[in-house]
Amino acid sequence: MSDTYRVQESELTRFCREVFAACDLSPEHAAALADTLVQGELHGLGSHGVSRLLPTYVQRLQRGGINPRPRMRVLSRRGTTGVVDGDDGPGAVVGHYAMDLVLEMAREHGSGWVAARNSTHFGAAFLYARRAVAEGMIGYCTTAAIPIVLPYGGRAPALGTNPICFAIPGGERGDLILDMATSVVARGKIQLAVLERKDIPLGWAVDHDGNPTTSAVEGAKGYLLPMGAYKGYGLAAIVEVFSSVLSGAAVAAEIGAMFSDMDKPQGMGHFFGALDVSGFLPIDEFRERMDRLIEYIKSTPRAEGVEEILVAGEPEARKAALYRVEGIPLAEDVVSAIQQVAADLGVEPLQVICETGPEGMPEL
Amino acid sequence: MSDTYRVQESELTRFCREVFAACDLSPEHAAALADTLVQGELHGLGSHGVSRLLPTYVQRLQRGGINPRPRMRVLSRRGTTGVVDGDDGPGAVVGHYAMDLVLEMAREHGSGWVAARNSTHFGAAFLYARRAVAEGMIGYCTTAAIPIVLPYGGRAPALGTNPICFAIPGGERGDLILDMATSVVARGKIQLAVLERKDIPLGWAVDHDGNPTTSAVEGAKGYLLPMGAYKGYGLAAIVEVFSSVLSGAAVAAEIGAMFSDMDKPQGMGHFFGALDVSGFLPIDEFRERMDRLIEYIKSTPRAEGVEEILVAGEPEARKAALYRVEGIPLAEDVVSAIQQVAADLGVEPLQVICETGPEGMPEL
Repeated sequence: MSDTYRVQESELTRFCREVFAACDLSPEHAAALADTLVQGELHGLGSHGVSRLLPTYVQRLQRGGINPRPRMRVLSRRGTTGVVDGDDGPGAVVGHYAMDLVLEMAREHGSGWVAARNSTHFGAAFLYARRAVAEGMIGYCTTAAIPIVLPYGGRAPALGTNPICFAIPGGERGDLILDMATSVVARGKIQLAVLERKDIPLGWAVDHDGNPTTSAVEGAKGYLLPMGAYKGYGLAAIVEVFSSVLSGAAVAAEIGAMFSDMDKPQGMGHFFGALDVSGFLPIDEFRERMDRLIEYIKSTPRAEGVEEILVAGEPEARKAALYRVEGIPLAEDVVSAIQQVAADLGVEPLQVICETGPEGMPEL
Repeated sequence: MSDTYRVQESELTRFCREVFAACDLSPEHAAALADTLVQGELHGLGSHGVSRLLPTYVQRLQRGGINPRPRMRVLSRRGTTGVVDGDDGPGAVVGHYAMDLVLEMAREHGSGWVAARNSTHFGAAFLYARRAVAEGMIGYCTTAAIPIVLPYGGRAPALGTNPICFAIPGGERGDLILDMATSVVARGKIQLAVLERKDIPLGWAVDHDGNPTTSAVEGAKGYLLPMGAYKGYGLAAIVEVFSSVLSGAAVAAEIGAMFSDMDKPQGMGHFFGALDVSGFLPIDEFRERMDRLIEYIKSTPRAEGVEEILVAGEPEARKAALYRVEGIPLAEDVVSAIQQVAADLGVEPLQVICETGPEGMPEL
């Protein structure tokens, strides 16, 4: 029953802005938070978009888990380093506030590095890192998350999916944007297998007691495994250091749960950085070299059945280009849920196109 | 026949210094290169130590593949960014030259980021990154390498094992040092399986035609797979950007082979960085928070049969502590090879302790 409806990017943006404004966010903050969810959805990341996050963000804003009127502050700033306090505001708002400071530092000194504390879930990391790309810089972003991933040698979770993102400005072949969880897969993939009544490959997850499982149902109740065993576990620890330890934020199990404790701030930490390419090479020369690297990789021999070798960020960029034209697909239950949110807040319903029947708008 | 001999760290250092001085390196450069190989071996990384590299480095120094008298230069420097030219010198010498600049920048601006071109193989990445740790900073290091790893969806190599290293200063629990290749395993592990006549797990390597294999022999003739499939592949591309593209160095297949073209400089690129912790938190508070993170991770429940959950860098640090007391183990064929190198160069033989027989020094 998924992909039954489509919505235009501009309409989804209008809708999300009004929803967040109705939750008492300033117009500017409502726009930033709306953009985060729309961009996530537009790039095919429902787990970081409207589909999974809008109703939760609204509930948290209403119940105190996210502060709708944060008074963010720069706690310290020295050269290319600094710490910001997000005052429990929406993670997207805190993220852009920190990234503003990062870019200011990088324009002056060639790089900027800012850690954020007292923040909340911020959506997809690439949205912050790619702001550096727009200025001819390399962007960097990490965030901590509540522990659901086993350490190497463990049978209970120690760290979160702790994503790491590098965003590199490219030339004609596009930017190189790696935004990856340090677990083998995101939990969403296991939940999808549950819905589709499929097994999961061994190595994705363990059950609640820490035993390896191919059952999606048991895996969904259990925990994730780190990618590449001790390597992903090691990288998750590094992400925790940047995001949580360095920022003075809550660390690992201290981080508040997003989907349960709706009235409790998460105390979450993130980390943001930018590195100016022109401090190394003229940007045009760099872009040309990026094109050559990407063309070289894509020209290497393909495995049987593989039509094209893709580089990081390419699948998402293609989805976004397609959805900008055809509209963004939304599952029926997602549309129902967000129309209910709109009705409760007195916001004009989302204008969607129904693809499977003549009735147009779904009934609530 | 391995681990038959032991050598003291100080004696191995004396020996390597004399070998490299006999290859026309300045005393300072001979000491830096010696230290790199001794530290690699001391930390249990024979693949990055005397065992695998000494005879090759000597051959390359003699035949022109490494310039023994490099005139290194800072090509550009602005704020926290810069590029150095290694003049085809030993990678370790170039690495420390770049890291000197990085640390100078970081002391002034809170961070420093330097790319190096015209370099050669530099041993283990952690040796450069951990210099930042000694100053209460986070260290970062990447290097490109010749392509032997498949891209996701490929059947021929596109990128090298392209390691990435983060080094974090710790407290009483020690530093957190992640130094990992972005392939599932290093090629050395497959070569070891060949020697031991064992199969390798599916997913480590492919044969020369790009087909998955459990044969160590076929895998050793073939190529490595990236860790975590598209994730390790994506990370390897990011490492290539930092090390090769940004530095203006040779990229991927342009990099010279270390073990074959002995008379040809490699044109290799690396990247080095440091981030001053005190720009975020007082260093003592940070160290205490690191201790808490490490203690928390190590206290999580262990899988059956696992005695202890380790953090990144812990196995290597323990090996180094042990070998400092007991001596560094060297395999018999390694000892034979390096004594031959010494004899050819007129250097006093390495004083080793033979553990398996009464005869003391091995016969050449």
